[in-house]
Amino acid sequence: MSGENRPPVTVIGLGAMGTALAGAFLDRGHPTTVWNRTGGKAAPLAARGATVAATAAGALAASPLTVVCVLDDRAVHEALDPVAGALAGRTLVNLTNSTPEQARATARWARERGAGYLDGGIMAVPPMIGRPESLILYSGPAATFDAHLATLSVLGSPMYLGEDDGRAALYDIALLGAMYGMFGGYLNAVALTRAAGVPATELTPLIVSWLQAMLTGLPRMAKGVDAGDHAAAASNVRMQALGYVNLLDTARDQGVRTELMAPMGELLDRAVAAGRGEGDLSGLVDLLRAPEGTR
Amino acid sequence: MSGENRPPVTVIGLGAMGTALAGAFLDRGHPTTVWNRTGGKAAPLAARGATVAATAAGALAASPLTVVCVLDDRAVHEALDPVAGALAGRTLVNLTNSTPEQARATARWARERGAGYLDGGIMAVPPMIGRPESLILYSGPAATFDAHLATLSVLGSPMYLGEDDGRAALYDIALLGAMYGMFGGYLNAVALTRAAGVPATELTPLIVSWLQAMLTGLPRMAKGVDAGDHAAAASNVRMQALGYVNLLDTARDQGVRTELMAPMGELLDRAVAAGRGEGDLSGLVDLLRAPEGTR
Ligand SMILES: NC(=O)c1ccc[n+]([C@@H]2O[C@H](COP(=O)([O-])OP(=O)(O)OC[C@H]3O[C@@H](n4cnc5c(N)ncnc54)[C@H](OP(=O)(O)O)[C@@H]3O)[C@@H](O)[C@H]2O)c1
Ligand SMILES: NC(=O)c1ccc[n+]([C@@H]2O[C@H](COP(=O)([O-])OP(=O)(O)OC[C@H]3O[C@@H](n4cnc5c(N)ncnc54)[C@H](OP(=O)(O)O)[C@@H]3O)[C@@H](O)[C@H]2O)c1
Repeated sequence: MSGENRPPVTVIGLGAMGTALAGAFLDRGHPTTVWNRTGGKAAPLAARGATVAATAAGALAASPLTVVCVLDDRAVHEALDPVAGALAGRTLVNLTNSTPEQARATARWARERGAGYLDGGIMAVPPMIGRPESLILYSGPAATFDAHLATLSVLGSPMYLGEDDGRAALYDIALLGAMYGMFGGYLNAVALTRAAGVPATELTPLIVSWLQAMLTGLPRMAKGVDAGDHAAAASNVRMQALGYVNLLDTARDQGVRTELMAPMGELLDRAVAAGRGEGDLSGLVDLLRAPEGTR
Repeated sequence: MSGENRPPVTVIGLGAMGTALAGAFLDRGHPTTVWNRTGGKAAPLAARGATVAATAAGALAASPLTVVCVLDDRAVHEALDPVAGALAGRTLVNLTNSTPEQARATARWARERGAGYLDGGIMAVPPMIGRPESLILYSGPAATFDAHLATLSVLGSPMYLGEDDGRAALYDIALLGAMYGMFGGYLNAVALTRAAGVPATELTPLIVSWLQAMLTGLPRMAKGVDAGDHAAAASNVRMQALGYVNLLDTARDQGVRTELMAPMGELLDRAVAAGRGEGDLSGLVDLLRAPEGTR
């Protein structure tokens, strides 16, 4: 695609994700400058037409918009603090995974140095980048988002969550929490059946369709949470707490560690003990609130 | 639908699930006899045409095929041990959630009393019963399964897993393990965002599509598990272990208990410490095997 009218963009951080981001900009014809702490990682992108900056300062200077995607918030500051003088008048879009507090602090830090700032959360794995199914969450000033929307849309489907700089990080972290629950459950399932000689590839299609079916129940649970109405539709917590004992017993019988599954059983038991046994699983969300004074 | 050619069937246990099972048989015209430990629960089914047996023995005697679906294995035996004399020449299909060991023991117990026996696992919630998306797993003698396939198909889509009486229970438990991981992750996600004032109904559509996207990665993980090949495709464990710290920190910042999420973080850290940091999440399954001698 012709890049004649595409604004230049810089990508800082060329791990698996940064490489995918830079690749998407190149594919869509954006003049793309890249920088990575460790050299060498830029070579494949250079072969695809990227300009490799010799320094992080040079990378920031090369484009009005810089996307940074490094390991974590500490890496953001290790990479950019020494060259923060080059931020003035530029816009920084930070797609590094961060906590909401970190996002807000980095937003302040960047603006104090005269930069525009957006924080983002990438809800995609690298092979999805550049495709519509790659959802990227953003928060920060609406004017900054609007100014760079066309460029950011190259990376996937952008979703703007408002002016609170920490909002994209909050959603990102929440979605990751949901994903790691699912992955942990998947690992448990595979560990259980593998111990009995069942190949993971045999079980997995069943898991996928079962979880797809169970996903359709989440909107109803969400309504229950928002309404504070946890009447059981069809599956009461008391029955589930008892069924959960079978899960733990089977793990022990199969020689599988129960560390990932035990806490859910304890939470179900706690719900029964708290008088929520006849209610729905959605009621457990109330039990995840930390008692006051323990934050 | 006319029931003229439909074989009679008995359902023992009229909780949420047993009621749905009996209702599906009635809807498809099977002469249906029901029994429940506590009276009263049968009344709505009687109004739909079910025969209410006065005793469990009478219920078993009424039909060649009895489906039992009570709370747990203990309830199966509390209900049926006193009337086991009525089992001879009958077929018992046990859809109560059980461990593989319990399923095998109940199969032996029933056959010793002259009954045919199938063990099953219901991968559905009650409102799904009778619809194709209700998957019901069965194991036990193929001839017994074949003899009752037409009747059992009324409850949903039957899947036969072979002669090992414990196999359906194993798959059932594994799929439940996957489901509870996902539900636990969902509860974490909702707890995190709710603490910041985000309604669950706002977050949930995002969670559903994100988990749907992440489900598509499971078949690749399964291949890695079966091949023992845990090379990271695009997301290494070391990066994920660091991102997980952000999840835990955000929970603490938001006043959310970390009990459901902490063990996955510990497992990720254990994987990094074991030299699996550059590998894929699929490698974690090896770390869930209990050390020899700790079963
Ligand atoms: N991969 C995914 O599936 C995925 C999905 C969504 C979000 N993310 C997020 O994207 C970010 C990057 O992930 P990734 O998969 O690309 O990780 P990765 O492949 O491990 O790459 C990490 C990158 O961070 C750089 N880095 C680390 N410490 C640094 C420091 N102190 N100073 C400067 N640069 C430093 C590394 O540079 P060197 O080459 O010099 O080490 C490398 O470019 C993370 O925040 C992650 O949570 C990843
Ligand atoms: N509901 C679901 O979403 C679902 C999904 C898949 C599988 N299952 C499985 O289906 C089975 C039944 O679940 P459910 O939802 O129907 O539970 P439920 O609504 O709590 O009903 C429990 C049933 O078990 C009976 N029962 C309990 N203890 C008994 C005993 N000692 N002797 C005789 N009967 C006894 C109860 O009789 P009383 O009326 O006399 O108490 C009642 O009929 C469980 O194994 C569950 O794991 C349920």
